[in-house]
Amino acid sequence: MYIQLDFESDIPIYEQLKDEIIMGIAKKQLLPGERLPSVRALAGDIGINLHTVNKAYQQLKQEGFLLIHRQRGVVVNPEGTPKADEKYEKKLTALLRPQIAESFCRGINKEKFWEICETVYEEIKEGDINE
Amino acid sequence: MYIQLDFESDIPIYEQLKDEIIMGIAKKQLLPGERLPSVRALAGDIGINLHTVNKAYQQLKQEGFLLIHRQRGVVVNPEGTPKADEKYEKKLTALLRPQIAESFCRGINKEKFWEICETVYEEIKEGDINE
Repeated sequence: MYIQLDFESDIPIYEQLKDEIIMGIAKKQLLPGERLPSVRALAGDIGINLHTVNKAYQQLKQEGFLLIHRQRGVVVNPEGTPKADEKYEKKLTALLRPQIAESFCRGINKEKFWEICETVYEEIKEGDINE
Repeated sequence: MYIQLDFESDIPIYEQLKDEIIMGIAKKQLLPGERLPSVRALAGDIGINLHTVNKAYQQLKQEGFLLIHRQRGVVVNPEGTPKADEKYEKKLTALLRPQIAESFCRGINKEKFWEICETVYEEIKEGDINE
C-alpha cells in the first residue's frame, strides 16, 4: 500500500496516516487479517516519528480497525471493519455539516458537491484491485 | 441566530463557533453587511473565553467571511462570501476523502451517504427564512 502524506497540510500527520490506512481498507488493498509494518518499520519507511505512527495505530485499534498483538504485531481486524451505528451516523453528519455549509456559501451547489464526492468513490473503486 | 456548541465534542470550540457562523451565513440568517456581537458580548452570552471568540472571528476574517472594523465592529462581508476556487475544491476533496473512505468501510453506501448530505441541505433550506 502506498501512503501519501502532506507535510504542509493543517491536518496532523497521525490523522493523515489514519486516513490513509482506512482508505487502504476501503480500497481492499489492506484485507482483514493482513499484517501492517511495525511502528518502527513504518516510521522509518516514511520518515516520521515513532510516536506519530503509534498514535495512529492506537486510535485505529480503539476504533476497531486494527488489532495489536504482542507477538503477531499489527493486523487489520480479521473480523472486518466496524459497522456504522446511530452514534457514528451522528458523528458523520456533524463532520459533513460544516463542509456542506461552507461549500454552499462559496457557491458549490448540490450537484457540484456530489461530483466531488463521486471522485472519491471512483478513487476507492479504482484502487480495489480485487474488483 | 442561534449558536449551538457541543462542549463534549472533540472539535475545538472556536471551530464549532466558526462552523455555526458559516451555517448562519448559508441559511441567510446572517446577511452581507450584518453586524455580529462584539467578542466580549458573544463570549459572555455563550459563556466561553474571549480568546476563543476572537480566534473564530480572526480566522473568519482571514478567510473573507467577516470584516472587523475598529469602529463598526464585526460584520458579515458586505461583498458576499468568498467563492470556491480550485484551491478550495482541492481542500474540500481532501476533507471529504477520509469521511467517505471511513463511512464506506463501515458499510454506508453511496445512497446512504447522500441521504445524510441531503439532511444538511434540508437544514440549510429550512433555516433560510428569506426563501
